[in-house]
Amino acid sequence: MARVVVDVMLKPEILDPQGQAVQRALPRLGFEGIADVRQGKRFELEVEGPVDDAALARIHEIAETFLANTVIEDFSVKVEVGEGADAAAGKAGS
Amino acid sequence: MARVVVDVMLKPEILDPQGQAVQRALPRLGFEGIADVRQGKRFELEVEGPVDDAALARIHEIAETFLANTVIEDFSVKVEVGEGADAAAGKAGS
Repeated sequence: MARVVVDVMLKPEILDPQGQAVQRALPRLGFEGIADVRQGKRFELEVEGPVDDAALARIHEIAETFLANTVIEDFSVKVEVGEGADAAAGKAGS
Repeated sequence: MARVVVDVMLKPEILDPQGQAVQRALPRLGFEGIADVRQGKRFELEVEGPVDDAALARIHEIAETFLANTVIEDFSVKVEVGEGADAAAGKAGS
């Protein structure tokens, strides 16, 4: 079964309080040199059958209508090939 | 400034109610053929200075001690090269 990863991140112009909280906590914990942190969501979808253009178009639609709020969030769809290797299959923001 | 991505996912043996909710909702919304969904977190860290082995070791430590709960979560650290392209820089679960 193939795995498709949908990453959903707040748009750059949208304030990210979770990420800011992490970024501000790091120096207190002794970690310097991290200028910015953004926190988002990662969805791993196990797809039945082949991951062809039709399946990717469908997952793109799932991401756009259901996983991401495209008013404030960007998303990207990637096919994960094997363990630990990524292949870019399409990147979309809206 | 270089971007390092830390992905944090629940371990496979840990129940993921958020992912299950998404997976169960998909057929109702007309999307068939998704066997499983897991939901996790994605952190994008903007690193000042070069992303060398020392910086990656530090980010690995940040991820392990602060971003992930390694009792129930796995994490992976990746350096993102350019826009939309990923280079695997290290994968670690615990």
